[in-house]
Amino acid sequence: MADEKKLVKEITSMDDDFAKWYTDICKKADLIDYSSVKGCIIMRPYGFAIWENIQKILDERFKEGGHENVYMPMFIPESLLQKEKDHVEGFAPEVAWVTHGGNEKLTERLCVRPTSETLFCEHFANIIRSYRDLPKLYNQWCSVVRWEKTTRPFLRSREFLWQEGHTMHASAEEAEQETIRQLNLYADFFENDLAIPVIKGRKTESDKFAGAVATYAIEALMHDGKALQAGTSHYFGDGFAKAFNITYTDKDNKLRYPHQTSWGVSTRMIGAIIMSHGDNEGLVLPPAIAPIQVVILPVAQHKEGVLEKANELKARLAKRFRTKLDDSENSAGWKFSEYEMKGVPVRLEIGPRDIEKNECVLVTRHNREKTVVSLDRLEDAVAEKLKQVRDGIYQKALDNCNRRTYRCDSMEEIKTVLKEKGDGFVKALWCGSEECEDKVKEETGVGSRCIPMEQELISGRCVCCGRPSRYMVLWAVAY
Amino acid sequence: MADEKKLVKEITSMDDDFAKWYTDICKKADLIDYSSVKGCIIMRPYGFAIWENIQKILDERFKEGGHENVYMPMFIPESLLQKEKDHVEGFAPEVAWVTHGGNEKLTERLCVRPTSETLFCEHFANIIRSYRDLPKLYNQWCSVVRWEKTTRPFLRSREFLWQEGHTMHASAEEAEQETIRQLNLYADFFENDLAIPVIKGRKTESDKFAGAVATYAIEALMHDGKALQAGTSHYFGDGFAKAFNITYTDKDNKLRYPHQTSWGVSTRMIGAIIMSHGDNEGLVLPPAIAPIQVVILPVAQHKEGVLEKANELKARLAKRFRTKLDDSENSAGWKFSEYEMKGVPVRLEIGPRDIEKNECVLVTRHNREKTVVSLDRLEDAVAEKLKQVRDGIYQKALDNCNRRTYRCDSMEEIKTVLKEKGDGFVKALWCGSEECEDKVKEETGVGSRCIPMEQELISGRCVCCGRPSRYMVLWAVAY
Repeated sequence: MADEKKLVKEITSMDDDFAKWYTDICKKADLIDYSSVKGCIIMRPYGFAIWENIQKILDERFKEGGHENVYMPMFIPESLLQKEKDHVEGFAPEVAWVTHGGNEKLTERLCVRPTSETLFCEHFANIIRSYRDLPKLYNQWCSVVRWEKTTRPFLRSREFLWQEGHTMHASAEEAEQETIRQLNLYADFFENDLAIPVIKGRKTESDKFAGAVATYAIEALMHDGKALQAGTSHYFGDGFAKAFNITYTDKDNKLRYPHQTSWGVSTRMIGAIIMSHGDNEGLVLPPAIAPIQVVILPVAQHKEGVLEKANELKARLAKRFRTKLDDSENSAGWKFSEYEMKGVPVRLEIGPRDIEKNECVLVTRHNREKTVVSLDRLEDAVAEKLKQVRDGIYQKALDNCNRRTYRCDSMEEIKTVLKEKGDGFVKALWCGSEECEDKVKEETGVGSRCIPMEQELISGRCVCCGRPSRYMVLWAVAY
Repeated sequence: MADEKKLVKEITSMDDDFAKWYTDICKKADLIDYSSVKGCIIMRPYGFAIWENIQKILDERFKEGGHENVYMPMFIPESLLQKEKDHVEGFAPEVAWVTHGGNEKLTERLCVRPTSETLFCEHFANIIRSYRDLPKLYNQWCSVVRWEKTTRPFLRSREFLWQEGHTMHASAEEAEQETIRQLNLYADFFENDLAIPVIKGRKTESDKFAGAVATYAIEALMHDGKALQAGTSHYFGDGFAKAFNITYTDKDNKLRYPHQTSWGVSTRMIGAIIMSHGDNEGLVLPPAIAPIQVVILPVAQHKEGVLEKANELKARLAKRFRTKLDDSENSAGWKFSEYEMKGVPVRLEIGPRDIEKNECVLVTRHNREKTVVSLDRLEDAVAEKLKQVRDGIYQKALDNCNRRTYRCDSMEEIKTVLKEKGDGFVKALWCGSEECEDKVKEETGVGSRCIPMEQELISGRCVCCGRPSRYMVLWAVAY
C-alpha cells in the first residue's frame, strides 16, 4: 500500500524544504490553483469551503456582539485616500491604480481598496449626528488588494479575502474596550476553533497600522519556528474623525469627535492552519472548519450489504457532522492517502466483518489512532474523536510553541539560542527605543512581533542597550 | 398622527415621479448611501441584510444542485480577456483598467472583472482531463465592475454584487439542461420567495451575452410598466472551450471539447423588489428575505407589564421569525411610519388592554389589515400573516403585469396601446430578422425583451414587415 500511495500524490517532506512542503499542500490538497493573474490565487472548492466555514463562525460571533454587515465600494478616489496623512503614506506605495474606465481616462485615478478606513470615515461623517447614533458597529466581508512584490498562497497575495470591522464610539474608553473585545474574540477563535495557540500583544510604535494610535495583534508560531501575525485590532482615537470631520452632539449638546476602531482577519488564517497542523502526509484540519469532518470509506464495497450499510451510516452522521461517503472505484490505498492529504479529521472504515460485529473503525487523522466502536453509539463516538483531534492538534502546536520559546538576556544569547535551537519566539527585555528595536533585528535577525499582554519580569535591562527595560517583547522571524 | 409622520420621513409619490420615488426609498429605508466614489453605492446594514438573506437561500439551492463555490482573482489580464473574440468585443468598452501597481507601471494592464468566463476557462483548461472530471459545477459570489455612464442604485451601478455560476459538461445536451435548470431555479426563487411574477424566455440574437450560443432570461414587469431583466442563464456550446483549448478524453479515449454554461443574478434583484412591491409609504418586503419579519411595537410601554410582555413575545417569536422589538422612546407614530418605510411585513402591537385580554394586534404591511389574535396561537398567526403578505403582494404584482400586458397585431396598435394605457409588456409576432427588431424599437420605443418559452399564436405575420412570423416576442421599455 505504501507504494500505491506514492503513485498517487507525493509532497516534499517538511524537514527537507518547509516552503516547498507548504505550497505542495496548497496544490495537492486542492486548496488553490494558479492563473495568469500574477500574485493572485484561485481558491478551489475545498479551499473555499474552509473559508466559508471560518466566515460562518466569525460572522455569527460578530453579529452576537451587535455588529452589522455593510458593503462599501471597492474603489477609493486618490483624494479620499490622502485625507489622513499617515494612512496614505502607509498604503499608497502598495495599491493598484485604476486610471481608465472603458476607453476614457479618469479625471481622478482610483485605487482598489487596500483597506476601507477612508470609505467608512466618509460614510460615518454622513450618518453620525448625535450620541444616539453611537456606537456604530460595522463589519465588511470583501477582497482587498495590496501590490506585493513577492507572494505566497494565503500568506501574502496581491488580492486576498478578509473581514474588516469598523466601529465608532462616543468615548475613547469605549473604543479601547471594543479594540480589546475583538482581539479577544480572535484569540478565542484561534485557540478553540482553529486549535492554534496565540499570544496577544500590542505592536511597537514602528509596527503600528498606518494611522492607528495602537495596534494589537495575535501572533502564532508556525511549525518551522517562524511567527505569523494572525489577526489585528486597531484603536484610532479620534485622528481619522478629525481628518474626516466626523462629529456628534453629546447629551449636553456639545460637539465632540467620536473614537474609532478597526480589526481584521483574512484568508491568511488558512496558511496558519496549514503550517500549524499539517504533516508529511498533508493537511490536518481542525474539525470546526473542516469541509468534511468524517469520511466514510467502505472496505470491500463490492460485497453484499457493505455499500448499503455505509449509506445508512452516512445518513445518520450527516445529521450531526459534515460527512462524505466515498464509494468511488478508487482503491482503498488511494482513498486513505487522498483524505489524509485533505486533512479530514476522522476516517470511518466499514467492511463485512465490521458489519457482522455491529462495529466500525474510526481513525483520527493527526495520530492515525484506530478505535473500534459499536455502531450503537456511533454519533457520540465520532463527536468524541473530533474533540480528540481538536485537543490533540492544539496540544501539539502548543508543545511546539513552548519548545521553541526562549527567554534571552543578551544579544549574544539570542544569537546562540537561535543558532542552536532554530527559529522560535524570543522573549527579551527592551527599553522602548526604536534604535534598539532596529538593532536587535539587524544583529540577530528577529524582529519585534508584539509586547505581550502578559508581561514577565519586566524590571530588568534592555537586551540591546542595557538601560532599564520598559517591556518584555516577543521577537521572531515572521512570515 | 398624520402630521407627525410627515415630520419624520417623506418620500415623493410614485404617481408624481416614479424615479424619484425609487431613489427616495433607497435612501429613506436606509438601504444605501452615496459616497465620493461616483456610480457606486454603499449598501447600509438594512440593505445588505436583504442581500445576505437572498444569498443564503440561493446558495443553499445551488449547493443542493451539486454546485461548489470557488473564488477567482478580481483582475483579468488584457490578453486573457481577448481570447474569445465576441466576449472581448462585448465587454472591453465598459471595463475599468488597472495600469499601475504601487509606483510602477504594469507591463500588461489588467481589467477589473466584468464577469469571469475567461478566468474560469483558463482554470478549467488546467483541471479538466477526463470525462471523470465532468461535470464541473462551480459558482462564485463576488463583486464585478462595468463602467456605466448613467447609474441608478441597484439597477445599474459601476460595481455590483452578484453570483456567477460556471459549469462544464461532457455533452451539449447536458449543458443545455443545466442552462434551463438554473433559469427555472431563478424563476422559482422570484415567484415564491421574492413574490415577483416573471416570464421566462430566450433573448434574440442581438441581445445575447457576448460569446454565448443562447441566452435565457427572466423578465419582470415593474409597477410603472417598465421591464427588468432579473436574471440570465447562458449556454455557450464549446466556443470558449475551443478558444481556451479545454479538452477531455471521453470513455472511448477520444479527445473532445466540453460544453459550457454560465448564469447569474445580482443586487439588481433588490431594485426589482422595490419597484414590484413598494408603495407610497415606502418599501414592502417579501417575508422570505425581509431582515425583520415581525416588528413588535409596545403601546403605552411605560405602563406596568407592557415591556415585560413585549419582551416575552419577542423571545417566543424569535425562535421562528426574524423579530425586532422597538422599545425606544420614539412616538408610536414615528415607529409606525419607520417600519412601514422599511417594509417590515408584519407589525405586532401590544398594549395594556391587549394584555388583559391575552391578545395582540397584527397588521400586515401591504394592505394595513389589522387582526386581533390570541396570544395562545401567536406563532401560527404570525406565520399565516407572513404567508398572506407573500400571497398578497404576489397577486398585486401579477395583476399589474396582466393589466399591463397587451397583445398587438400592428405597429400602429403598439403605438396606440402604449400611448393610451402606458408602458407594459407588448406581445407581438416577429419574423426573426434583426432589421424588423430594430425598426419596432425605433418606431414604437419598445425593445425585444425575450422570446417567451410559452409561445402563443405564432402562426401569423410579423408585426413589422408582414412576412410569416417565427416567434411571439415580448417587447417593452426596459430598465
